[in-house]
Amino acid sequence: MRYTFLGPVGTFTEAALSQVIDLADPEHTAIPVSNVETALAQVRSGEADAAMVPIENSVEGGVSATLDAIAEGDQLRIIREVLVPISFVLAAANHPDAATSLSEVKTVATHTHAWAQVRHWADANISQAEYLPSSSTAAAATALANADFTANPELLTQAAVCSPHVVHQLKLNVLANAIEDRVGAVTRFVLVTRPTALPPVTGSDKTSLVIPLPENDRPGALLEILDYFAVSHVNLSRIESRPTGSGLGSYFFSIDVDGHLAEARVQDAVTGVYRLSPTTKFLGSYPRADKQRLVVDEIVSDNAYAAARTWVQSLLSGGR
Amino acid sequence: MRYTFLGPVGTFTEAALSQVIDLADPEHTAIPVSNVETALAQVRSGEADAAMVPIENSVEGGVSATLDAIAEGDQLRIIREVLVPISFVLAAANHPDAATSLSEVKTVATHTHAWAQVRHWADANISQAEYLPSSSTAAAATALANADFTANPELLTQAAVCSPHVVHQLKLNVLANAIEDRVGAVTRFVLVTRPTALPPVTGSDKTSLVIPLPENDRPGALLEILDYFAVSHVNLSRIESRPTGSGLGSYFFSIDVDGHLAEARVQDAVTGVYRLSPTTKFLGSYPRADKQRLVVDEIVSDNAYAAARTWVQSLLSGGR
Amino acid sequence: MRYTFLGPVGTFTEAALSQVIDLADPEHTAIPVSNVETALAQVRSGEADAAMVPIENSVEGGVSATLDAIAEGDQLRIIREVLVPISFVLAAANHPDAATSLSEVKTVATHTHAWAQVRHWADANISQAEYLPSSSTAAAATALANADFTANPELLTQAAVCSPHVVHQLKLNVLANAIEDRVGAVTRFVLVTRPTALPPVTGSDKTSLVIPLPENDRPGALLEILDYFAVSHVNLSRIESRPTGSGLGSYFFSIDVDGHLAEARVQDAVTGVYRLSPTTKFLGSYPRADKQRLVVDEIVSDNAYAAARTWVQSLLSGGR
Amino acid sequence: MRYTFLGPVGTFTEAALSQVIDLADPEHTAIPVSNVETALAQVRSGEADAAMVPIENSVEGGVSATLDAIAEGDQLRIIREVLVPISFVLAAANHPDAATSLSEVKTVATHTHAWAQVRHWADANISQAEYLPSSSTAAAATALANADFTANPELLTQAAVCSPHVVHQLKLNVLANAIEDRVGAVTRFVLVTRPTALPPVTGSDKTSLVIPLPENDRPGALLEILDYFAVSHVNLSRIESRPTGSGLGSYFFSIDVDGHLAEARVQDAVTGVYRLSPTTKFLGSYPRADKQRLVVDEIVSDNAYAAARTWVQSLLSGGR
Repeated sequence: MRYTFLGPVGTFTEAALSQVIDLADPEHTAIPVSNVETALAQVRSGEADAAMVPIENSVEGGVSATLDAIAEGDQLRIIREVLVPISFVLAAANHPDAATSLSEVKTVATHTHAWAQVRHWADANISQAEYLPSSSTAAAATALANADFTANPELLTQAAVCSPHVVHQLKLNVLANAIEDRVGAVTRFVLVTRPTALPPVTGSDKTSLVIPLPENDRPGALLEILDYFAVSHVNLSRIESRPTGSGLGSYFFSIDVDGHLAEARVQDAVTGVYRLSPTTKFLGSYPRADKQRLVVDEIVSDNAYAAARTWVQSLLSGGR
Repeated sequence: MRYTFLGPVGTFTEAALSQVIDLADPEHTAIPVSNVETALAQVRSGEADAAMVPIENSVEGGVSATLDAIAEGDQLRIIREVLVPISFVLAAANHPDAATSLSEVKTVATHTHAWAQVRHWADANISQAEYLPSSSTAAAATALANADFTANPELLTQAAVCSPHVVHQLKLNVLANAIEDRVGAVTRFVLVTRPTALPPVTGSDKTSLVIPLPENDRPGALLEILDYFAVSHVNLSRIESRPTGSGLGSYFFSIDVDGHLAEARVQDAVTGVYRLSPTTKFLGSYPRADKQRLVVDEIVSDNAYAAARTWVQSLLSGGR
Repeated sequence: MRYTFLGPVGTFTEAALSQVIDLADPEHTAIPVSNVETALAQVRSGEADAAMVPIENSVEGGVSATLDAIAEGDQLRIIREVLVPISFVLAAANHPDAATSLSEVKTVATHTHAWAQVRHWADANISQAEYLPSSSTAAAATALANADFTANPELLTQAAVCSPHVVHQLKLNVLANAIEDRVGAVTRFVLVTRPTALPPVTGSDKTSLVIPLPENDRPGALLEILDYFAVSHVNLSRIESRPTGSGLGSYFFSIDVDGHLAEARVQDAVTGVYRLSPTTKFLGSYPRADKQRLVVDEIVSDNAYAAARTWVQSLLSGGR
Repeated sequence: MRYTFLGPVGTFTEAALSQVIDLADPEHTAIPVSNVETALAQVRSGEADAAMVPIENSVEGGVSATLDAIAEGDQLRIIREVLVPISFVLAAANHPDAATSLSEVKTVATHTHAWAQVRHWADANISQAEYLPSSSTAAAATALANADFTANPELLTQAAVCSPHVVHQLKLNVLANAIEDRVGAVTRFVLVTRPTALPPVTGSDKTSLVIPLPENDRPGALLEILDYFAVSHVNLSRIESRPTGSGLGSYFFSIDVDGHLAEARVQDAVTGVYRLSPTTKFLGSYPRADKQRLVVDEIVSDNAYAAARTWVQSLLSGGR
């Protein structure tokens, strides 16, 4: 099995993948790629079997690149979700002349999003340091691990904001731990494959959909879509609006609902959505990472739906 | 075939039945009975094959006795509806000494409901006359046709408010025509049988339901029920609230909707209603008397439902 | 003070009025009239100060004549409601030769509606007796009390179905008590005046409205009207549909809601209804007969409305 | 007047500000700052009078940093919106030895978001070039304009992806124009001040709100909030969900609606939202940039609201 992931080695995404496969197992190949679009494209083309990508962060919100890359192009299926707590460390090179205290740091490299999540800490603790954007947190760390300090002596006073995971892998020197501004942040990752038979119902499932709002009467359509879920007592656990790209005010919605497509109430809501917006994409029904069991109202239980259908069938053939 | 109807001979109900069968045809037996409950009971017991009963009047509203008698007891099916324009005449006995002008009329006999529909005319034209309740308009007319005027000379100055139909049958003397206060009144009658296979979809159909509101949270339940119809774009052409008899504030709803149970959008709404209120009764899907064709929104067409179901089935088996 | 009521003396309506005034008090005049329309017309014209009329029965449903008579013509105000338990007795004349057992009864007189409420009992106990319609239960009783038995000896074997109240007043002979088919029936009466300042909020109030559905898109309008109440968390304790008389399918709704017009959430809902249907009639806010206290959700409390309004006013003038 | 904006000089935000003030006018001071949070903080503190910040892009969606920075901290008011078409150019240093053709480009510097919007073009046209993240498009351009090419000769083969505006200001050498992947992209900017009296109603206005979903029953709350707008016929022109930061599944909504808070229907909806979610923030009512006039349904016009209020006031004091 070949897995792509948002790399390089050492990212939080690799940490997510490590919850699903043993990265050291020779039966699996983990392929770091530079962006989510490529990770998914390789699955679509068959070069890879699955991709691990970030989809939502408890502080930053939905990961736009992933939401958009999943929504566009050939259909994909989410078959699993993984939660990774997000914590950042400030690390310096593992070199005798490298900075060992916060006050010695002159530049800080990291990805823009990581920088946004530690800025208050940075303002308070390393305000003298200049920010250098980097293409990923792992890239910032790797630059220190692989540096030619003779050619680039300024890297001795550079620090990286990165994951504890990569610091450990690269044996960097930790200057400060848990520097994130918001404690308890979590990122949700999803494992994505080509369309496949759905995993079985576990009683603790999620279903993900991409719903373009029809052109005319968009606000009314949103209300109608929410009404399909309300009428079927299907709870929305995530709702993200994303522009379709065709103009301000034109959206699609990326939605997670509680339940599995094999359950009648979810089918009821989803078929309604499909009728209203026939370019709706189904992204999968899969077990929740938190294993929290759903409580289903009796009037929308599979039994209630089956009884109603049986009754109607009986009426149609002259029964009572 | 044996038909019961709300008698006696000469009622508007008999006129409705005459639109469905040739009353003179020896293959059919038309059986007048004294109340709607009996008419339906004979169908339920098998003594009769069908009953013609009034269900709604454009002035007086729903006919409570019919709504209640259909709702209680074994299931029945409405298989046809008939509209009869309601017009009243004032008639006197066909006798040389009987009243021939309005001013000679001393008493007026008719059914309470008919009296309510001509009272303004009566106040203006025969205010001298006293009102005598009668068990039906036809009974009031028959009393004049069959009278022993020697024993009951007061019947010579009595008039009956009744249908043009019965006046013609009994050869009474018309004192005034079209005396109804509200011109254009129409009564809707339904032909009722035991449960049977539904008549085919014509594109101009109605479906009738009796929906008890669940005990708890009745107003919320009514809103939820209406929402099932709204979400499925199913129009309500009649809604009547009726007490269940178990206390003030406890209702069932008698509802007609546009469309046939064999149509997907109607099934969608009706199964929702059944899940919420499993003692809901289905009274039938049958052609509209006015033959007005329905326009069905594309997103709730049978095709749209079929496409959505096909899509979901494909997803469940790994398709896209 | 002059009070009209649906007479004659001895009706359940007089019993309702006796809960409000001492009928023997010379300061009050209680005026029996023959129909609800007249009772209300005398209030509208100023001949009477108030009218007591039946509005809803727990078995038979809304009283159409009252609902229609209140809805048409000049505005009126309900200022009070009264509940009267409905029980029927079978009574014969108080005369030595009159029937004293059920088997001796040959004819039974009563109002059509009362007859409908005792028919099962009658079928089981006096099936030999013929039914004679009468203009009211009290009229049936009075006919026996005031009879000239020499001229009309058939009245000796006639019984009346009427209220215990009138039997006691007229000293008739009771053949059977509590003969109603449905035990526990209650009729709700309302005391109606010309428009007047509203009684104070008691925390256990009702508000009555008559809402014509706008011509176009009636089902959508009903849903929108119910939505005004839902959004304001105002409970509907009664909803009756009535034909407007202008054709099948054209309705107005007669509605009671929990709460007083002086409460913000009721005003919110009622103003919405008025905007949608500007010929809506307000029939009054008045204390509930059952004195049951309302529990009001915090987000629709008067305080919540006041806070929201204060906030908006502050924003409009540049505050925060 | 002092204006902060998301700098440095040469950004699209400066272009937006130039639509509002003459940047050359000595009465105005335009202050570039490095992030949106700082731009708004200076307005909150009084150091600046207004801030111009990007709020929504037709391709990338809502600008998270702005949505979050406006939502947190002291209240602010949007008093104006500005639309700027977004087009990118690829520019090289204006130096005799600098790259003059696409094939000579070895590195490309720009902001991550700009890079995302030109990546397809870059893959097709300059696939040989390596991407270097930069803190803004303008910073990437400035680095080429101010370069010391002796010390950093690699900048001769570096190109910047930036706005036509800054290329013109800095006199860089354009290698390719209009390289954005999606033609017609637009970014919406807003001018933000401290709370102030609202600008007058123009008939073509928007109102912006930040609505935290109450803790319990979030999906129901979203439906209820949308219902307030639906019942008042207030159209939503933008809806963005943003995490509150307190955990996955906890959102606030950033919403723009058509209309001005001084209009009754907007007040109706907004007070409902406030009652449900009392920490709702009002961000302002201001003229639409596109000047498109609203059509207001009669039943939610200011006149309809006023008539309904007048009616209720009259009822409360005994009128009809």
